[in-house]
Amino acid sequence: MGTTTATAPWKQLLLNALQSNSNLKHSSFVQLATIGSNGKPSNRTVVFRGFQENSDKIQINTDSRSHKIEDLKHCPFAEICWYFTDSWEQFRINGRVDVIDGSNADPIKLQQREKAWFASSLKSRLQYLGPHPGLPSLIEQPSQEPSLDPSTGPVGAYCLLVLDTDQVDYVNLKSNERVGFASRLSGNGEKSWTSEKVNP
Amino acid sequence: MGTTTATAPWKQLLLNALQSNSNLKHSSFVQLATIGSNGKPSNRTVVFRGFQENSDKIQINTDSRSHKIEDLKHCPFAEICWYFTDSWEQFRINGRVDVIDGSNADPIKLQQREKAWFASSLKSRLQYLGPHPGLPSLIEQPSQEPSLDPSTGPVGAYCLLVLDTDQVDYVNLKSNERVGFASRLSGNGEKSWTSEKVNP
Repeated sequence: MGTTTATAPWKQLLLNALQSNSNLKHSSFVQLATIGSNGKPSNRTVVFRGFQENSDKIQINTDSRSHKIEDLKHCPFAEICWYFTDSWEQFRINGRVDVIDGSNADPIKLQQREKAWFASSLKSRLQYLGPHPGLPSLIEQPSQEPSLDPSTGPVGAYCLLVLDTDQVDYVNLKSNERVGFASRLSGNGEKSWTSEKVNP
Repeated sequence: MGTTTATAPWKQLLLNALQSNSNLKHSSFVQLATIGSNGKPSNRTVVFRGFQENSDKIQINTDSRSHKIEDLKHCPFAEICWYFTDSWEQFRINGRVDVIDGSNADPIKLQQREKAWFASSLKSRLQYLGPHPGLPSLIEQPSQEPSLDPSTGPVGAYCLLVLDTDQVDYVNLKSNERVGFASRLSGNGEKSWTSEKVNP
């Protein structure tokens, strides 16, 4: 058993991996697994949008009309699998996901959603004006591309997901090392982390 | 709705993607999502080991001591997320997984397991002689590397997973096209496939 720390000890490892794989455009692509309302696992690629300020909470943008929203309302737990193709490192990050759409009652969360909206590119934002994802596509597409003023705030279909990390499993396939990180909440609600080397 | 076919129409798309990304050593790496016995999703990188002869069944090698075996015995459903980093194509492949270890009662399945064992490299096979994956690692590693005769058959820890595909969701991020493929079993047990273009 390693020592107990208040700051997530895997976060620096992850930031280092992002740095050493930053030449690859797909280095921020991760696979997010959830449980569907049919009780079967569901898995798709999403983009890591950074940590929420001074925390180990992971931000992901998504469309409120996508299946994963239904999945997460049914079961809020998710696991991210993040494989870095250059450095041969894998992070498996699990926790509970907070779904923040425009109907959220918490003004601080609505602010976080707005901030994440403006942090994404105009091209990304335009996606939320498109037709309902996953529904049959019409043969005829509208001839006009949707347009969006850069100062327009988050549209209805835009949803921010925030994963509050519970456990992380790290494997380095070059050094053949594996470390498990686990968090625990103390009586005052503060999270602390322990780590342990395990067999790969 | 597209036409109904007996051969999986997504299989050729996948073989084409493998071909066009074959310069990347990670092109056969996929993320496999299962449901843990704690009811939470679990997600990890595994290697695609090809299709079972003349079928749309996907083969994966794994260690019978890994958590995913426990997961799959508890809930046999899984979803593979396969993102091709060069061609920007994603395949989400779900179905039921057959876990074939040395104790399997079906001689045909044991033959498939033996065939898959000999199809993997000697280096891959050696992994199954290592210490129990996921358990705390001892500071002192044995000084002698394990050795294995190339003619030795599958060892106890070697397990073949066979995913029998049920549905596939295909997205091409370059052409911005998405297609859903669904299978159905007819009265005589034969599988047929339909496909439908959906909004990305």
